Amino acid sequence: MSVRDIENELNQLAMSEAAQPLLEKVKRHVLEHCEPAYIEYERLGEGRPERFQYAPGQLEIIEDLKAKAKAEGLWNFFLPDAETGEGLSNLDYAYIAFELGKNPLASQSLNCAAPDTGNMEVLERVGTPAQKERWLKPLLNGEIRSAFAMTEPDVASSDARNISTRAVLQNGEWVISGEKYFISGAGDPRCKVMIVMARTSPDAETFRQQSQILVPMDAPGVEIVGPMRVFGHDDAPRGHMQIRFHDVRVPEENILWGEGRGFEISQLRLGPGRIHHCMRSIGAAEKALDLMIHRGLTREAFGKKIIDLGKNMETISRARIEIDAMRLMVLKAARAMDVLGNKEARIWVSKIKAMVPERCAKIIDDAMQVHGATGLSHWSPLSEMYIMQRLLRFADGPDEVHHFVVARAERQAFEASADRMQAARAETRGGMLFGGP
Amino acid sequence: MSVRDIENELNQLAMSEAAQPLLEKVKRHVLEHCEPAYIEYERLGEGRPERFQYAPGQLEIIEDLKAKAKAEGLWNFFLPDAETGEGLSNLDYAYIAFELGKNPLASQSLNCAAPDTGNMEVLERVGTPAQKERWLKPLLNGEIRSAFAMTEPDVASSDARNISTRAVLQNGEWVISGEKYFISGAGDPRCKVMIVMARTSPDAETFRQQSQILVPMDAPGVEIVGPMRVFGHDDAPRGHMQIRFHDVRVPEENILWGEGRGFEISQLRLGPGRIHHCMRSIGAAEKALDLMIHRGLTREAFGKKIIDLGKNMETISRARIEIDAMRLMVLKAARAMDVLGNKEARIWVSKIKAMVPERCAKIIDDAMQVHGATGLSHWSPLSEMYIMQRLLRFADGPDEVHHFVVARAERQAFEASADRMQAARAETRGGMLFGGP
Amino acid sequence: MSVRDIENELNQLAMSEAAQPLLEKVKRHVLEHCEPAYIEYERLGEGRPERFQYAPGQLEIIEDLKAKAKAEGLWNFFLPDAETGEGLSNLDYAYIAFELGKNPLASQSLNCAAPDTGNMEVLERVGTPAQKERWLKPLLNGEIRSAFAMTEPDVASSDARNISTRAVLQNGEWVISGEKYFISGAGDPRCKVMIVMARTSPDAETFRQQSQILVPMDAPGVEIVGPMRVFGHDDAPRGHMQIRFHDVRVPEENILWGEGRGFEISQLRLGPGRIHHCMRSIGAAEKALDLMIHRGLTREAFGKKIIDLGKNMETISRARIEIDAMRLMVLKAARAMDVLGNKEARIWVSKIKAMVPERCAKIIDDAMQVHGATGLSHWSPLSEMYIMQRLLRFADGPDEVHHFVVARAERQAFEASADRMQAARAETRGGMLFGGP
Amino acid sequence: MSVRDIENELNQLAMSEAAQPLLEKVKRHVLEHCEPAYIEYERLGEGRPERFQYAPGQLEIIEDLKAKAKAEGLWNFFLPDAETGEGLSNLDYAYIAFELGKNPLASQSLNCAAPDTGNMEVLERVGTPAQKERWLKPLLNGEIRSAFAMTEPDVASSDARNISTRAVLQNGEWVISGEKYFISGAGDPRCKVMIVMARTSPDAETFRQQSQILVPMDAPGVEIVGPMRVFGHDDAPRGHMQIRFHDVRVPEENILWGEGRGFEISQLRLGPGRIHHCMRSIGAAEKALDLMIHRGLTREAFGKKIIDLGKNMETISRARIEIDAMRLMVLKAARAMDVLGNKEARIWVSKIKAMVPERCAKIIDDAMQVHGATGLSHWSPLSEMYIMQRLLRFADGPDEVHHFVVARAERQAFEASADRMQAARAETRGGMLFGGP
Repeated sequence: MSVRDIENELNQLAMSEAAQPLLEKVKRHVLEHCEPAYIEYERLGEGRPERFQYAPGQLEIIEDLKAKAKAEGLWNFFLPDAETGEGLSNLDYAYIAFELGKNPLASQSLNCAAPDTGNMEVLERVGTPAQKERWLKPLLNGEIRSAFAMTEPDVASSDARNISTRAVLQNGEWVISGEKYFISGAGDPRCKVMIVMARTSPDAETFRQQSQILVPMDAPGVEIVGPMRVFGHDDAPRGHMQIRFHDVRVPEENILWGEGRGFEISQLRLGPGRIHHCMRSIGAAEKALDLMIHRGLTREAFGKKIIDLGKNMETISRARIEIDAMRLMVLKAARAMDVLGNKEARIWVSKIKAMVPERCAKIIDDAMQVHGATGLSHWSPLSEMYIMQRLLRFADGPDEVHHFVVARAERQAFEASADRMQAARAETRGGMLFGGP
Repeated sequence: MSVRDIENELNQLAMSEAAQPLLEKVKRHVLEHCEPAYIEYERLGEGRPERFQYAPGQLEIIEDLKAKAKAEGLWNFFLPDAETGEGLSNLDYAYIAFELGKNPLASQSLNCAAPDTGNMEVLERVGTPAQKERWLKPLLNGEIRSAFAMTEPDVASSDARNISTRAVLQNGEWVISGEKYFISGAGDPRCKVMIVMARTSPDAETFRQQSQILVPMDAPGVEIVGPMRVFGHDDAPRGHMQIRFHDVRVPEENILWGEGRGFEISQLRLGPGRIHHCMRSIGAAEKALDLMIHRGLTREAFGKKIIDLGKNMETISRARIEIDAMRLMVLKAARAMDVLGNKEARIWVSKIKAMVPERCAKIIDDAMQVHGATGLSHWSPLSEMYIMQRLLRFADGPDEVHHFVVARAERQAFEASADRMQAARAETRGGMLFGGP
Repeated sequence: MSVRDIENELNQLAMSEAAQPLLEKVKRHVLEHCEPAYIEYERLGEGRPERFQYAPGQLEIIEDLKAKAKAEGLWNFFLPDAETGEGLSNLDYAYIAFELGKNPLASQSLNCAAPDTGNMEVLERVGTPAQKERWLKPLLNGEIRSAFAMTEPDVASSDARNISTRAVLQNGEWVISGEKYFISGAGDPRCKVMIVMARTSPDAETFRQQSQILVPMDAPGVEIVGPMRVFGHDDAPRGHMQIRFHDVRVPEENILWGEGRGFEISQLRLGPGRIHHCMRSIGAAEKALDLMIHRGLTREAFGKKIIDLGKNMETISRARIEIDAMRLMVLKAARAMDVLGNKEARIWVSKIKAMVPERCAKIIDDAMQVHGATGLSHWSPLSEMYIMQRLLRFADGPDEVHHFVVARAERQAFEASADRMQAARAETRGGMLFGGP
Repeated sequence: MSVRDIENELNQLAMSEAAQPLLEKVKRHVLEHCEPAYIEYERLGEGRPERFQYAPGQLEIIEDLKAKAKAEGLWNFFLPDAETGEGLSNLDYAYIAFELGKNPLASQSLNCAAPDTGNMEVLERVGTPAQKERWLKPLLNGEIRSAFAMTEPDVASSDARNISTRAVLQNGEWVISGEKYFISGAGDPRCKVMIVMARTSPDAETFRQQSQILVPMDAPGVEIVGPMRVFGHDDAPRGHMQIRFHDVRVPEENILWGEGRGFEISQLRLGPGRIHHCMRSIGAAEKALDLMIHRGLTREAFGKKIIDLGKNMETISRARIEIDAMRLMVLKAARAMDVLGNKEARIWVSKIKAMVPERCAKIIDDAMQVHGATGLSHWSPLSEMYIMQRLLRFADGPDEVHHFVVARAERQAFEASADRMQAARAETRGGMLFGGP
């Protein structure tokens, strides 16, 4: 395709006719089922003695939501071009994921929650039949959950080449040793397996040293040290866990796609994972905007509704504009993944990954400011929403790395375009000409 | 249409097949003809004795560009659904206008320059046959130019009800007295007519007091006091002029659409006018980005290319992302005008009017910073580009007014949506529930 | 004093000779005693079963620090012009409080922690001999702690006139009913008394309706509902508590300074309280800067120290400059309190209260970004530091209220200054003159 | 001095008793003489045929202001520790320079205008008796003006080592060839001499290659090409000139302080020059604040004074706070120059140079926004004030270079401080301890 044709393809951002009824169903599901369920779920979880167990009744709430969603055909939307035929295009899914971002239980209730989505995608794309049977099937059915173990505490995680967890092949088994942290969901009792990124081939060229290996959570030697508390928040019972691997042994066939293909698999999963996060982030920002307006309309100070004080109306406008702009950008990135494939779309993914969490965090922060101290507290969902967005500025690469990717691509595109270079030179030369003697 | 259907219509942002070849032609026209022409045009204009006359050769350059454009069929794109059938949809035109924003002569060369575009649109929509014959025809042919006289120095122009220039009907003539300023293009010797907003009916209800009247530039009593200099820049020979009306008399039939319809006409013209400005602004920002990269790649300090110093790569990424986001927003606003009509699309127009000039100014300012002092000077086009964007933060309404329009609409939409209010209440109530006893 | 003389007085910002040795002692105390003590204190507190009890050993650590401080003469610095003669000037204390802000146990170890400081100041200034004997004495000795109960959940706390907790005099007792929240330190087992703001006189003029009343924590009817969790953080065992008053009865003589003087007392306490917070905030920002540099120097990515990547050096410079500027502003506000008294200095206090927490939060956020995800977690003190600064943007009045106070004062000063008005008019008139005809 | 003693010295920011009456006199001089004089001066300059000549009457206005100032003893304040004894300390002068920043003629009227001040300081410090007699004396008397030619168009001026203008010694004469631009004041007919930075010793070590040489403006071979127009503004009749040196010959003894000492001299002059700019910048920002309040109070829109709309009050507060903070920072930098000398104070100078112009530009931009389009035009002084501040972000080093200087110093100070490193390590280790196993 020519550049022009690509641009035209990428700007076709409407939802497909086929998917539109699904969107309506999802909206009703979130509003009518997830909203009240979440309040009850949180109430039950208060003060449970074991932080990393579900309180009685909590899992029932989740299972009930899942059953309702499944019955409506709202299930496994995240996986485009799946053999099973269940998934939507990235573009269609984006519309739905926005809605899921408005409620903390919504994604899970449709079996569309991270990091299962990425794990399922990887298994579907590169898993062996046996791996699919053992892990993909129960994941697709929502019977188990999973984790993805990449980030490490002792190295700068922004540079994936630094990963130092070792896996050595001994007698038909991978022996894994090392430490990971911020392993989201690994505290969930339902989490049965994780995909572990480990250095298997230290002598290979840089990007062929890492592999990804399936490790059951109950494998001997897996020590879950405890949760990383983000702003003091343990995110129990799922958690962002610190995990140590003490000579953990798994069968040789637990490797995914073959030795040294860890980076390749990462490329596969990170695009969709990042884009899903951004979709949901915008839903969260939209929710924050509603909470901000609601608070502004229902409180008074100095004889006026708070919404009418100072800069608050402008804050609302700026949030609205920012959300609309981010939404279009994410739709376009999703469309790029559909049209160009995950690899070619990676610059679009970096654009939204660098843009969305930072700005959503800002919108949520503004909403907190309108709420007063209550907005920071557990009486409001805003602070948890903020924490999530703040954390996303690091998850799957810090903002800075994505900005670098975008800038490098832009620079290369400039250097590759005779037209752009000529026009830039012309202006400068022109200036020199008429500014000079 | 349902809300869902509207959303889907509005997100169909691809250029039509029919218009795509035009876009390619425009790009070549700008790059190959306008870029070198502008350098020569500026050189000729340097040091001309009469600031508000064209220097010898300048008009020839413009006419040559117009002839070339016309020969290629690049003409009068701005007017959708015109009787003459020449115009493009707003969406298609947006793609083209982006390109026009990259060069100061480009819009004019396609007869798509403000304020003629708005004046032509008004004349086409509400003009009498006689008005069309006398003024619209030569404007569409690019034979004359025109101005629009609304803003006044003595009142806050953000609130259009304040306009105080008077027009009184005496003996079949409108007698106009008052003062206007920032009347763009009124210094151009080719400018032959202006549309003047004046209070004709002080006793009518608020939004029926103003009318719009055609006033030839050479009507007795029209005094062009001189140019408003913006950051010291007189924008000669077109200028943003200060004009006094000393009992200027024009025939009764010079009124447009009838007495008291001034605000209605404004609604008609302001939407397209604002959106055209924003389209071109993004073209300017894109040009600034190219200049920034070019400078960064061709200068060195402290042993490195400037582009590789400090935050410059991140600045480039942020500019790229911001431009892409603004572009999608403007495309959507254009699409909204096509689908919903100018009136219904006005919130979208306010969104981009509040968003685009402020951010384009920021991008251009960043580009200046990368250039060093040269970037502020006449050796670079950046400072004029900056001035234009800074001025656009007031033209057709200051940012603050547009933010207010957006926020008010958002607030009303929230109050009108039972779903949004319920979800916002649920969260708060939920919080209170599990936070409380 | 003339305006000029005041300016000169206020700019004498050096620490007094007498206090300088104290500053050195405090620095050593914080570095050598508080730093290692805090690490141990936190370790002991991990996983304690009762969140609002101290873990074994924790209080011993605090008492040991207090003993060490007292032995060095580092005690009760916060109270200028005290009868007991212990306090320092606000200016001298500011220098010391900066240091205390670097460690979470430091203020307490010198008996200079909020809200005891404000409560002691109030008792010292307006308490009866009996009130002093019962409450001030043990507070000054560090034997008990205290709370201040003002903020309420159901009204906009930014407008203190809204306070609705009622206190009715019945048979020589105040009967208090209502609800408060964000009552810092009320969870501490050592907290024995709180000062409660309550509406005693609903029929008096607006600013004479409130009174402040001493309420022992163990008074029947005081229900501590639980902690407000700020970003999920319960700040145990001290906490920001939600408290209900169910017809709590205290003797009539527990009122402070007389009925209807609640606002007057607030004026007394809020100035110093706000300034102390700001002093410590800057210490925290300084600490964050050190942590940012340390991290930047000790981690590598993409072949460079992180400090040398992208905008990080500029981030450090901006933090340094911002801290220095805030520090001078707080010194000047402290000096203003010394020279002008708390009431006259209130604009200065509002200036720093609006300025300091917002910017310190930004610096800490930047430090977190340099740390990667670790910086958000409990492995780093940064997120707790951030939470504190974010909360301070509401404590003792939200930023917006303080900005309004500053702007109103500025506006009034402008209107009161013939010189300022003349010069402003001259410029405008001048412009009109030479810009006009 | 110990660090502690230095800190105390540097925080003694009050004006000396001796200088206080001068400050009052300067305020009256600016308000009563400069303000009306400037309006008349501008009026006379409008439309003068030769841009780089003074219009009839303009120089008389300036000379009259100078005479008035001299008669009051307001003269040559800028030069501390001068042999002539005229100068004030940097700290005392800072107070006065703030006032001078409020009016464009004020500095010149006291013979305290750049770049004469820097040139006089250099001549006073390192000039030979003959150089002093010929150039310093008439400069100190205000009989002539001067320029400083350093910046060059073809190299990144942020890195002074790049300077490429050559000076070769031939037969007892320096023969200078090269090109300079942004040479402020070189268009003034009264400008008689410039100090030219040139590479005399290309084979010496890096920082000994440059020298500074006195060049009379009328030396053969000096070609003033024309003014650099900043945002289109030519700053006539003084101008920021582009100058070519075509084998310009001056006597060998015109060198300052000896061959290869160009960088040393720069160190000498740049500190004071930068600090003077910053002092005046704050005066300009203060003036902008007054204009913003004045406009806000005297215009209405939507039924309210503009000052009471939206975020305007907060904008005023933020400007007030920012100005106060900058003022204290500049006072401290001035004090640092007095106490530590120009060299040791250079970090303080970089701090304010990186801080002040950027923030003053922001304040002025905010003031323009409150003014509407008028604020951008020649009817208001704001746009010229903005241009000046924007240009200052490059003059004497771009912001980025100063931020780098500050960050590097901070980093070195951290590495040199065992205490800071220990505390930073303790926190991190502490975190690891209680977060880890």
